[in-house]
Amino acid sequence: MAKTMANMDSHSLPGPALYLGIDGGGSKCRAVIFNDRGDRLGEGSGGPANPYQDFQQSLDSVFAATRQALQAAGLDISAARRLHACLGLAGVNLPAIHQAFSRWQHPYGQLLVATDLRIACIGAHGGADGAVIIAGTGSVGFAHVNGQEWLYGAHGFPAGDKGSGAWLGLQAVQHVLLALDGFAEPTRLIELLLARLDATDGISLVENIGHGASQYAKLAPLVIDAARAHDAVALAIVRDGANYISQLARKLLSVRPPRLSLIGGIAPLLTPWLDEEVKEHLSPALEQPEMGAVRLAMQTWPPTATDSAERAR
Amino acid sequence: MAKTMANMDSHSLPGPALYLGIDGGGSKCRAVIFNDRGDRLGEGSGGPANPYQDFQQSLDSVFAATRQALQAAGLDISAARRLHACLGLAGVNLPAIHQAFSRWQHPYGQLLVATDLRIACIGAHGGADGAVIIAGTGSVGFAHVNGQEWLYGAHGFPAGDKGSGAWLGLQAVQHVLLALDGFAEPTRLIELLLARLDATDGISLVENIGHGASQYAKLAPLVIDAARAHDAVALAIVRDGANYISQLARKLLSVRPPRLSLIGGIAPLLTPWLDEEVKEHLSPALEQPEMGAVRLAMQTWPPTATDSAERAR
Repeated sequence: MAKTMANMDSHSLPGPALYLGIDGGGSKCRAVIFNDRGDRLGEGSGGPANPYQDFQQSLDSVFAATRQALQAAGLDISAARRLHACLGLAGVNLPAIHQAFSRWQHPYGQLLVATDLRIACIGAHGGADGAVIIAGTGSVGFAHVNGQEWLYGAHGFPAGDKGSGAWLGLQAVQHVLLALDGFAEPTRLIELLLARLDATDGISLVENIGHGASQYAKLAPLVIDAARAHDAVALAIVRDGANYISQLARKLLSVRPPRLSLIGGIAPLLTPWLDEEVKEHLSPALEQPEMGAVRLAMQTWPPTATDSAERAR
Repeated sequence: MAKTMANMDSHSLPGPALYLGIDGGGSKCRAVIFNDRGDRLGEGSGGPANPYQDFQQSLDSVFAATRQALQAAGLDISAARRLHACLGLAGVNLPAIHQAFSRWQHPYGQLLVATDLRIACIGAHGGADGAVIIAGTGSVGFAHVNGQEWLYGAHGFPAGDKGSGAWLGLQAVQHVLLALDGFAEPTRLIELLLARLDATDGISLVENIGHGASQYAKLAPLVIDAARAHDAVALAIVRDGANYISQLARKLLSVRPPRLSLIGGIAPLLTPWLDEEVKEHLSPALEQPEMGAVRLAMQTWPPTATDSAERAR
């Protein structure tokens, strides 16, 4: 499902190969540059890079992160042409976004575009096959085993992303609104949410949350805390969400990945709520997603014999 | 809960009083002008008028509808100063929007701003007390009895509006996405939704729906059709939504309104699914919301003795 794309417009690549890994996300993007010996030369960061939400902004953020990483590596901006770049970004498996990237007059020596899932998975397992569940603002399951890929979820807010931060927050707000109107069981979750959002009723509650998945996701830790304190409504929500994440894990485990990692912002909070059997199969992520992007670039354009010869000198 | 506001900056009002009623909504607004004898002089319409979404656009739409109604009545635009205007608009009970209207240098002789719910309720019951449930893109219950008001719901998509068109559509899409990934029971609803949205999988399904409540609400008739054809998932969704609307009705009936009407885009589709006891209490709406606005203006500024004397000649 996760398509990659190699840009065939090759620029001149003076000097030994450099590798750029980018992990783009809805709130920021991270860049890291390695040389062909595996030395980390520099890092950088930029603004939001979700091409599905804003394509041009993503390119700007990716380029800002690249420039910062080049500077940190003591390199001039012109060295961008020496970079074998791998960008891990959400939505690049959608045909329209894939095409937009094909037309992009990029500044790199080589360009590979992969999904954020693919690079997170490669990073989590240090370059080896495996599976990841990302539970943050959204939720998604992804496996890469023997050259085959599997993808579950990743449908976005509010229709998909069950068990995610945004989903947990939305479920809680939905219930509290019904309870405030007298249509559902009132529990302490009402007071907790009203206090947290500085609201006095349903109208100000909704007004103060604001719009979008990330606003709802901010409420997830409060919901999980309430469940831990035995709030009946929060318990039901968290159990339903965690049950889905356990189902997702079992689906991924059925393709026999060597490792499975649960990553993302609410992963540590959700883990205690998963099935025991699933918990036993979880392994910690080994590296960050941007390292997965570097590894993918190195697998795609391995250090050449010439590079090795140069290195030997 | 629904606040009204009389603008005290009185312009000169040459000639007998004219009454303007406006019903504003998220997709369009309607205007109607009456004279003080109760004769309908003209009608007009304008674009979206939801001040919570776009305040300036709402004013523009309201004014465009006013101009059109004046023209239809054979009146010059300058006759706006003769209008006793009542605008029924969503969100005007929110303090920020209420204040914005207070500052508006409006073109009318007199101005009264009321909630869309209030004017719909007055219209539905021909000026008398009563209650309404509006089930369209959103859902809300409102009652006005003996000078007191009650409001339930109206919290918006995606956190509120249970039983509404947008809610029905969202529930169906959520289920189909889970089913497509193998996490929920597959029923014919999957094929129906995919075909309707010209989609082949979950990714294209979500892409083709687009964003926002109205996009999900467009799917509601399909969901209700599927329930009628005994699709198990659609049945569960429609029953859950209709059960909430029945609860809402019972809550409103508890304040003993003389009449209760179910109005809005999906009202006719939902009615068969309501509790028998609730169905027995439903009465058809007598007039449109813009007529409710005219009635509210006439109640606020009754035809004067002078007007009556002029009329007698």
